[in-house]
Amino acid sequence: MDGTTPLTIDALTRLTASLDADLQATNRAIVARMDSPVALIPQLAAHLVAAGGKRLRPLLTLAAARLCGYEGERHVQLAACVEFIHTATLLHDDVVDESVLRRGLASANAVFGNKASVLVGDFLFARAFQMMVADGSLEVLRILSTAAATIAEGEVLQLSTQNDIATTEDKYFEVIRGKTAALFAAACEVGAVLANRPPAECAALANYGMDLGMAFQLVDDALDYNANVAELGKTIGDDFREGKLTYPVLAAISAGGADEQAFWARTIGAGEQTEADLTAALALIARHNAIERTIDKAREFAGAASRALDIFPASTLLDNLQEIALYTTARRS
Amino acid sequence: MDGTTPLTIDALTRLTASLDADLQATNRAIVARMDSPVALIPQLAAHLVAAGGKRLRPLLTLAAARLCGYEGERHVQLAACVEFIHTATLLHDDVVDESVLRRGLASANAVFGNKASVLVGDFLFARAFQMMVADGSLEVLRILSTAAATIAEGEVLQLSTQNDIATTEDKYFEVIRGKTAALFAAACEVGAVLANRPPAECAALANYGMDLGMAFQLVDDALDYNANVAELGKTIGDDFREGKLTYPVLAAISAGGADEQAFWARTIGAGEQTEADLTAALALIARHNAIERTIDKAREFAGAASRALDIFPASTLLDNLQEIALYTTARRS
Repeated sequence: MDGTTPLTIDALTRLTASLDADLQATNRAIVARMDSPVALIPQLAAHLVAAGGKRLRPLLTLAAARLCGYEGERHVQLAACVEFIHTATLLHDDVVDESVLRRGLASANAVFGNKASVLVGDFLFARAFQMMVADGSLEVLRILSTAAATIAEGEVLQLSTQNDIATTEDKYFEVIRGKTAALFAAACEVGAVLANRPPAECAALANYGMDLGMAFQLVDDALDYNANVAELGKTIGDDFREGKLTYPVLAAISAGGADEQAFWARTIGAGEQTEADLTAALALIARHNAIERTIDKAREFAGAASRALDIFPASTLLDNLQEIALYTTARRS
Repeated sequence: MDGTTPLTIDALTRLTASLDADLQATNRAIVARMDSPVALIPQLAAHLVAAGGKRLRPLLTLAAARLCGYEGERHVQLAACVEFIHTATLLHDDVVDESVLRRGLASANAVFGNKASVLVGDFLFARAFQMMVADGSLEVLRILSTAAATIAEGEVLQLSTQNDIATTEDKYFEVIRGKTAALFAAACEVGAVLANRPPAECAALANYGMDLGMAFQLVDDALDYNANVAELGKTIGDDFREGKLTYPVLAAISAGGADEQAFWARTIGAGEQTEADLTAALALIARHNAIERTIDKAREFAGAASRALDIFPASTLLDNLQEIALYTTARRS
């Protein structure tokens, strides 16, 4: 987690700055299309918009479209669709995980209740499809409806593997490919499709997004066991308490002896945890360098993401996209 | 609730029988498209399929398509889409309402948990859109994505009016138009769109579905206060316990004096209920003929639904569709 350098942080800042006008237009589209005569919908939506976030997924759609030479305005509405689908899954995730915090602020379910979160998530999901229909590309609709189904499958698979300490690394990768990387891939692919680029370029951007998403989620899973992030307003140990079999735990389990297996079987397998167990888990994870191994794995995916874009001609935008893959593995929040 | 006659019951039986081959094909499509490598999805889906139900909404799509002279096979997949959207909303409704029963059987959330119900609902919703994209009609996608957004708005509005005894009749109609009638309307309209019928016929079928859906939900809300249905395995008083302002309660509130207002303010407004309160509520509803007034209102909508189809030439299918509007107001479950 100490790979953070000004260079890599700057890559995301530079990418965001270079697409500032597009991103502002996307934010306006998000606010405009969250509106509804049913007051609770824009109220809850405003809570989410205020919470901010990096807008990484819509940024990828905007960047991919521009990388492919797209010069129209459709990418703005479609970037907003991508963010709506992401927001809908966040709302439902927070209900499923019973989260009380999201990006350091009270989560929507904590403020408005689980019921409103489920239903407003449904609204945003439906609204995203209405916006795609208005755009009119069946290919875009195909990509994003498939991503939405894949996300749900990944989430259900995560639920099925919860508390199962026999979960394999492959199964874990299947979970994060579904729950996270599929939307990164779709967000990027849509940009190329908009620009009517040939299949090889659409596939290159989809592969970039997929590997970037894998790296992103691996780092997210590492951060959940990183005590240094607590000061940033995030809680740590959520995955441990929920019995999620993430990479740092899988790495520690596979490296540990029988006594450690018994610890994981009790705390994550059976979900029997005391106050001191998170500290013990962090110690086992540190003993086996499981965070470093998670970040190393993230770097492999980030490298693959970067290489996937090598077919595009050199440009500042290309540099930024390749660098944010590196940024992803160095981020601290 | 005593208008049940062999004639009207027969209308739905006859409609179902006349579309038997289409309906069997739809059931096969439903089972085939609920499949997923993630085992929990087909498991939960099988629970829903086993629970049966009338398949009223897909039946409407099939019937509307045939009424419009459609002779292809697309209506089968789209009828399955309509059922998937309906099933997704049921799964989320049961989580929101904390229901333990659905059609007399344990609800999916009671068996598989709220988390799985939320996520499998999301999967079915996304899968429905994938199937529409495979069908390829942007007009069908427009109709069903708009219906999906309207359903969510209706559900959120219902949540906002919960426990508010100042809710108006108009607001109630807005809720049921969204949460129920919009999908009936879309299910019917899709059949006409498939057959490339002129706008007047598409609108006639949409209006038929909308008014039929209003009648259907009014009767549903009456049945929730009908002690006779308890023997059919349904619970009664769910809406009362949840503080929902449905037509029977609105009718009783508007007809009652100050002491009755105080009763409703305590039990539904403040949600303070004792064991005896449901019996007292039923007595007030009976005193003001609120069930009969609800059914009368349902009959108005059913009559309008039937008349909307008068522009179609006479046929047995037309007769059946017009008669099921009447059946809707006479059903007991």
